[in-house]
Formats: sequence, C-alpha cells, structure tokens
Amino acid sequence: MEKLGSQTIRFNNPPSILDCNSIVGPKEADGPLAKYFDKTLEDEFWGEKSWEKAESKIIKENVNMLISKSGISVDQIDCCFAGDLLNQCISSSFGLRESNIPFFGVFGACSTFVESMSLGAICCEGFAQNVLCATSSHFCSAEKQFRFPLELGNQRPQTSQWTVTGSGAVILSKNGPGPYITHITPGKIVDMGIKDANNMGAAMAPAFVNTLITHFLDTGRTPEYYDGIFSGDLGYVGKEIAIDIAKSQGYDIKPNYDDCGVLIFDKDKQDTHAGGSGCACCGTVFSGYLYKLMKERKLNKILLIATGALMNSTSSQQGESIPGIAHAISIEL
Amino acid sequence: MEKLGSQTIRFNNPPSILDCNSIVGPKEADGPLAKYFDKTLEDEFWGEKSWEKAESKIIKENVNMLISKSGISVDQIDCCFAGDLLNQCISSSFGLRESNIPFFGVFGACSTFVESMSLGAICCEGFAQNVLCATSSHFCSAEKQFRFPLELGNQRPQTSQWTVTGSGAVILSKNGPGPYITHITPGKIVDMGIKDANNMGAAMAPAFVNTLITHFLDTGRTPEYYDGIFSGDLGYVGKEIAIDIAKSQGYDIKPNYDDCGVLIFDKDKQDTHAGGSGCACCGTVFSGYLYKLMKERKLNKILLIATGALMNSTSSQQGESIPGIAHAISIEL
Repeated sequence: MEKLGSQTIRFNNPPSILDCNSIVGPKEADGPLAKYFDKTLEDEFWGEKSWEKAESKIIKENVNMLISKSGISVDQIDCCFAGDLLNQCISSSFGLRESNIPFFGVFGACSTFVESMSLGAICCEGFAQNVLCATSSHFCSAEKQFRFPLELGNQRPQTSQWTVTGSGAVILSKNGPGPYITHITPGKIVDMGIKDANNMGAAMAPAFVNTLITHFLDTGRTPEYYDGIFSGDLGYVGKEIAIDIAKSQGYDIKPNYDDCGVLIFDKDKQDTHAGGSGCACCGTVFSGYLYKLMKERKLNKILLIATGALMNSTSSQQGESIPGIAHAISIEL
Repeated sequence: MEKLGSQTIRFNNPPSILDCNSIVGPKEADGPLAKYFDKTLEDEFWGEKSWEKAESKIIKENVNMLISKSGISVDQIDCCFAGDLLNQCISSSFGLRESNIPFFGVFGACSTFVESMSLGAICCEGFAQNVLCATSSHFCSAEKQFRFPLELGNQRPQTSQWTVTGSGAVILSKNGPGPYITHITPGKIVDMGIKDANNMGAAMAPAFVNTLITHFLDTGRTPEYYDGIFSGDLGYVGKEIAIDIAKSQGYDIKPNYDDCGVLIFDKDKQDTHAGGSGCACCGTVFSGYLYKLMKERKLNKILLIATGALMNSTSSQQGESIPGIAHAISIEL
C-alpha cells in the first residue's frame, strides 16, 4: 500500500470483500430495502430482556450468519474490528465475547463501519488473510442513552433522524474475486460549531465534504468516476447541505450521490423525519443492498463515506458543539 | 510484517518509537514515579469548568507537547489512533478536534494505549511515516460516570482501583534509532464470569494470561527473554491472580513481572487500595517511566500488555459479567 496525496491510501493488492451479512429490525423490514436484508426481526427485543442485550444478540447472530455462509472457519479469521454507539461499545464486546477472534474495538460513532473496513483493509494488505468487520445500532437503546426514555413519547423535531436497528458485517480477504477496496481516505475531525443534537446531518455534512474533496484531490478522480457516491447517515437535511457545500467548492455530486439514511426508510409512510442514522445505517445498507448491487454488476465503482458525530449527552449538556468525522473507501470491481 | 503462530504479528521493519510524552494529575505527582512525568498538574480541573473538559485539555496539551519536542510537523503525521474511557470517547475527539490529523477512534477500555500502538505499528510498516497514538483518563470523570458522584464520599472496597488522571502519547516512525516495536499479540475477549465491578483486576487477569501465554507460544520466547513484563492496570489483586494463573499453566513470571497500576501509586501512603487503573495508567507509566528506562538502556526488552474491562454501568446493572481483553507489544532495542 502507499500514500497518495495528503490523506489517501492506495492498495497495491486490494483486499476483496469475501461476503457480507445484515440483520435489521421491524421498522427497517417495513422500508423500501426490506427484501435485500438477510434477516429481519419481528420485534425490537428478539427474546432478550433489554434493548442492550437485544443489540448484542443482533451483532452476534449477524457475525455467526456471515461466518457460516462465508465458507471459512473462525480460526482462519486473523482479527476483528467492531464498535457501536453504546457507552463503552458494549454491544460489540458482549456480542463478540465468544467469537474467539483477536478483537480490536473501534469507535467512530456512525462512521464505525467504514473505519472498521479501512483498518481491516490495511491488515489484509499486511499480515492478515481474513478480517471481520462488524457494527450495530438499535433505535431503542440509542434513544434511551442519547435522548429521552421512549416511554415519554416525546415529539421529535423534523431534523432528527431515526437510529437504524440492525447490524452490518463483512469479511475482507487478501485474495478473492472482488469487489475490492482499492483506496481509503481516513478523515480528520471537522467541527463547524453546530450545537443542535437533533440535527446530526448538519453537524456531519462538513466532515463528509472535507473527506470527499480530499479523496478527489488525492486520487485525481472526479464525482463522475463513480457509479455512486453514498454517505452513511447524513439524512435528508445533511444530504442537501452536503450537495450545497460540495457545489460551492466546485464539485457537482448531485447526479450520482445518495445517502444510506435516505435510502433505508420511506419518509412519507414511516414517520422517520430526516432519515436513518446509526452505525447500522451504513452497515446494513452496504451489507444488504449496495454489496448485492455490486455483485450483480449494477454498480461497479462506488465511494462509501460514513460519517460520525463524535459527541455524547454530557458534552451537549456542557454546551459543546458537535465534532464530525467522515471516512471514505473506494469499492470497485 | 507476517503472522507468527496463532495471533502474533512480527514486523520485518519494526517501527521505532520516536518520542513519548506524559501529563499526570496531582495524585500521580505525589506518587513514586512523579519525577519521570513530563508535566504534573496542581489540581484536577486545570482551569476548566468540568472534569470532562479538563480531561480533553490534558490529552490535547499532551499531544501538543509531544509534537513540539518530536521535531516533526503535524503534516508529517499520517494518522492518529486515540481513545479513552468517557462515553463515546469524547476526551479524545474533543481533545484532538483541532489537531488536523486523520483520526481513527479506538476503544479498548484500559487496553486502549497498547491497542493504539499495535494499530499504529501496522500502519508504519504499511503506508505511514509517522503515527500518533494517544489516550487519557481522569479519576473524577471516571468515578462520576462509572461509579458514584464524588460528592457522596462513598467508601471504596479494598479491591477497587484508582483511575489515573493523565495522558500518555507516543509517535511511532517507520525509521528511527529505537526502541522498536518488534511484535504485537492482539488479544481475544476473555470472560470468566466475574461480576464485581469493584474488582477489575480479577476480571482482567485471565485475559492478560491468555495473551501472555499466546505470545510465548507464538514467538517461542519465555518470560526470561524479557528484562521486564508489564501489565497495564491489573493492580495488586489482579497481579497476584495473574502470577498464579500463569504458574498453573507452567510459566513463572514472578521474577521479572510488574504492573503499571502497582508502580504508579504508593499504596500505603496514598490510600489507593488495589492500585492505579485507566487508559492513562499504562499510557503514562510507559510514556513517562518505562520509555526513559529503555532510552537509558536500563531496560532493553520489555513486553507491555495492557488490559481492558469491556463493560459499562448498564451492563453491570443488567447482571452481566465483565469481559476482559489484553493486547501485547514487544518493545526492544
């Protein structure tokens, strides 16, 4: 691998995505992408006594399904990158504690899925034959932790997003038939001073554009190079802001850009306001939907940029603004 | 780099530790290692209005001090790995939001420092010239978040540990005069069913021994190979358990093994019970103390194994046990 420009890494032997798997909750199973997900749940608990335990079960079973169908055994997986939104990332550590795979915990908020794949790809070009990357989020555990008890039935502002319940997971391999991770552009933290914790799209959009344009400058590529550019969870509000900022900097991304948080729910029928969010938004939309489109050759080159808001409820209560981050990966056939 | 045995990675061009820096709080400045730390604080707030903001300032200023004295500029640092104990790792993301360095957030609880150095070393043998690794913890922010309000003045059990206030940071470089990171052994999650959140040493000791013995089996080395084996924060209780478990499995580590949490405080004079803990325990003891001993050739080969308890207060309240993890790095001259 080698550095390209200021922030991008180009792989000389691009790691192949061996397989993906996705599990989603009942709300996602009512959405427009329902048929693409590998498993859909009928309720938010899945037989567990708490939402946190349910989220752990979701990532655990998703990883088990993925390993089963991948055709490789657990001891052929050199290491695992995983993280989630729960305090101290307990969904991942409890979900994967019986996995018996060397474990690197990562935290990039909703950018975690692409952060994991970026680090996994670096390992594959280094020492690893196979690397597992997994993430999860859960609407109920996230609302409880970041906002208000669900039992209150609070009204949600139109700029707020709906945390996706689910898990996305991939296995990357040193060799394989593709699709390949050809480049990664790890992002810098960008904080433009947004303080509204009910408008994450606005807080994260500047980080998205920063990484996007850095990727273009580093690689010499333009938006047209890609069949699709997908952000992780900017939602309707952040998507429009991102298009505007990119345009003001000379990049017209509108024709081939969309957002996983926009794709996963039907805004009009599902009352999800500004769209989906959470680690599992990008994770399930890629693992369930985009990966399948690539395997069917309906998409051949995509740029996946997951965005994260690096805050917690204490930082908001203490008057802090919301730092954003965005990590990009080029996935090509 | 190449895989050695089941879990270890050996570097063909071992990354060099270019420099380290450490800042600690007032309690640590009263302890036996005081003279080794680069900066000591007079109070827990450092002019900030909250403990969380103070912790962010500590990691920020520690990284600034490190970069200043390292002789390299920010734009020569290819990426940064950082994490901490606060929910959603806000100490790192707020502390480093102005750093202008591509940022990978990691979460390994108190194993974060060695996890960061492990991933940094992989990047150095890959694409990076220089990688920054940083972590922090803070006694007051940790007590407030994980245990009880400090104002309550709760009694602490004798098995409880004292979270280190401070930050440790290192810059790893592709080339340099050493000390070198020659091997890493990333750990698996180990959960032996311990549920006492006031006895982290007992919860983490099995993970420590698991990684330790895996490292010996993978490399063919024995405890005597190292001038010193150091765990991150098992404390007095965990240290004794670790020695016992290792002995039961045929490894006598007692002669050359110690724990950073044992070294950093004077148990009798400082009322710190089972010893130090937190991401900054291993981080400051390595950056402040062990690194200097290596530069002075008082230690030539060490094995640093940081341990983490991958739980949160919700998981304990829901009756879960405490999964542990331990990551090891060999540092040699």
